[in-house]
Amino acid sequence: MRSPDAEVRRAAEERLAGLATPAGALGRLGDLALWWAACQGQVPPRPPADVRLAIFAGDHGVAAHGVSAYPAAITQAMVGTFEAGRAGVNALARAHDVSVRVVDVSVDSESTGPHKVRRGSGAIHLEDALSPGETERALAVGEQVAREELAAGADLLLSGDMGIGNTTPAAALVAAHLGLPASEVVGRGTGVDAAGLARKTEVVDAALRRAGDRVEDPVEALTALGSADLAAATAYVLTAARAGVPVLLDGLMAVACALTADRIEPGVAAWCAAGHRSTEPAQSIALDKLGLEPLLDLGLRLGEGSGAVAAVPLVRSAAALLSDVALLSELLPGG
Amino acid sequence: MRSPDAEVRRAAEERLAGLATPAGALGRLGDLALWWAACQGQVPPRPPADVRLAIFAGDHGVAAHGVSAYPAAITQAMVGTFEAGRAGVNALARAHDVSVRVVDVSVDSESTGPHKVRRGSGAIHLEDALSPGETERALAVGEQVAREELAAGADLLLSGDMGIGNTTPAAALVAAHLGLPASEVVGRGTGVDAAGLARKTEVVDAALRRAGDRVEDPVEALTALGSADLAAATAYVLTAARAGVPVLLDGLMAVACALTADRIEPGVAAWCAAGHRSTEPAQSIALDKLGLEPLLDLGLRLGEGSGAVAAVPLVRSAAALLSDVALLSELLPGG
Repeated sequence: MRSPDAEVRRAAEERLAGLATPAGALGRLGDLALWWAACQGQVPPRPPADVRLAIFAGDHGVAAHGVSAYPAAITQAMVGTFEAGRAGVNALARAHDVSVRVVDVSVDSESTGPHKVRRGSGAIHLEDALSPGETERALAVGEQVAREELAAGADLLLSGDMGIGNTTPAAALVAAHLGLPASEVVGRGTGVDAAGLARKTEVVDAALRRAGDRVEDPVEALTALGSADLAAATAYVLTAARAGVPVLLDGLMAVACALTADRIEPGVAAWCAAGHRSTEPAQSIALDKLGLEPLLDLGLRLGEGSGAVAAVPLVRSAAALLSDVALLSELLPGG
Repeated sequence: MRSPDAEVRRAAEERLAGLATPAGALGRLGDLALWWAACQGQVPPRPPADVRLAIFAGDHGVAAHGVSAYPAAITQAMVGTFEAGRAGVNALARAHDVSVRVVDVSVDSESTGPHKVRRGSGAIHLEDALSPGETERALAVGEQVAREELAAGADLLLSGDMGIGNTTPAAALVAAHLGLPASEVVGRGTGVDAAGLARKTEVVDAALRRAGDRVEDPVEALTALGSADLAAATAYVLTAARAGVPVLLDGLMAVACALTADRIEPGVAAWCAAGHRSTEPAQSIALDKLGLEPLLDLGLRLGEGSGAVAAVPLVRSAAALLSDVALLSELLPGG
């Protein structure tokens, strides 16, 4: 995999150092600007102009086993709410000029879209999430969605998720990739109580034991512990990185998928930035592994890609600073 | 002073609780939306449509006494850079549709603008920053600027600052208002070294001893320990709050002025939100006192109001969420 352009990054560092601002005064927006310029391959960079969010929706067999505070029927209802433009992420996306696309990969509903792989994914503590063929089809869905968004002109992709129960397989993937026990990765998701948290930990623990060594292969980990929607989101991030287009990640699902993609093809992380710190412990653990630190920490627990959309203006801020601020050499032409 | 509308706030809380999102899922954007609605006096609120930043510029006698890493001549140069639209805050403001106005209150230059109170303010460890008459004139400048921006249609005001050495009087004001020793409030400003930090602490300490009990009156504190630009910024925040228009604060200077304004007329803080956490300890201390927590923490050390401008999209996000997201009652008309 190609890296963001190292030479452009050095030129961006030089420009940043030459701005008529005190050294280091741009803080993390300076770092973000360097990343953005290196990904885009030019200094000064253009601001993100065509930002696109894809929400990968799917249900999860574990939801019937007490790991979630909400019934699985919510997933399908939320897909309709996204399509009607009335969900939280739609409101944010309109405010910040981000397009939203919902992809029904594996919602447990009768609707049959072009990207539907199956109705729900397997309950991972009892069975594989997917058959190997379904994993391949889900990966192909994510690749196709990314290719379509890139062909339409996206210069920044965002990855979002919808699916009751999805923090359970996402936490399991993080645990599998990093060799951690269930107790370290499991969190309260959208608001499960203490008993639910204990059940969720048992489910992840059982899933990890069931999968065993198979998780050493990241695609096999998706088959055993993931889901169709998570496989699609993984391929979406992977495809963007292969195409040299940066990705702004949101919460646990997006980050678990980025981690999976980076295991499939090392180097994906260099094309990613993190929008918002999740309250899920597995997200922070996975971000540390990827070398990423979230831009925002506002306690959002909405999912949907909302934390990534909320952070888009910061990428615009960073690009604007590096491209528009005067150089000291312009202000002091004699010096 | 009138408070933000308590009845509207209750209606906003009810709407927030009725949104088709999990309870608490909007995190701090939910809190911000309640504040915004209560300030605006309507539910759902409109997003901020006319956002205006005023940068109060002035020099400080202490700058000649080794408290700053930069020479005082930078202040005047930066005023020119703002006017040319080439400073960091201009880049951010263009990216986020915020207007910028620079007010030369007390820059040590030959330029004589309509708002000029004096050339620089006094070195506060040796003498009063201002005469009482100058303090009055500076307060009148801030009031006039705020009135003009409000009359032009501002629905959100931002307060920015420019002035080499200005963190020294701002820290002194925070110490005076909260009864703290110099050592607790002094920070490295735009990058002073350890020796500079020690001198800065001595200067604030000497200034506090020199001012003595006079600081119990907040206007007298501005005269003794502040500066013309800080007095103007204080009146600007005070005038906005009196008019019932919210203010998004930036770093130490804006927060020290909001604290001063809140002492002049208790209740100002309720009209304020904090954009960005400063690396200056006095800012966090003053924000705690005001009951405010910054939205962003990106290590910006640019001043100029940049942290407030960078946070404007979060106010837009908050307003959009509270106004545009579906109510559960709309999705489930039978329920």
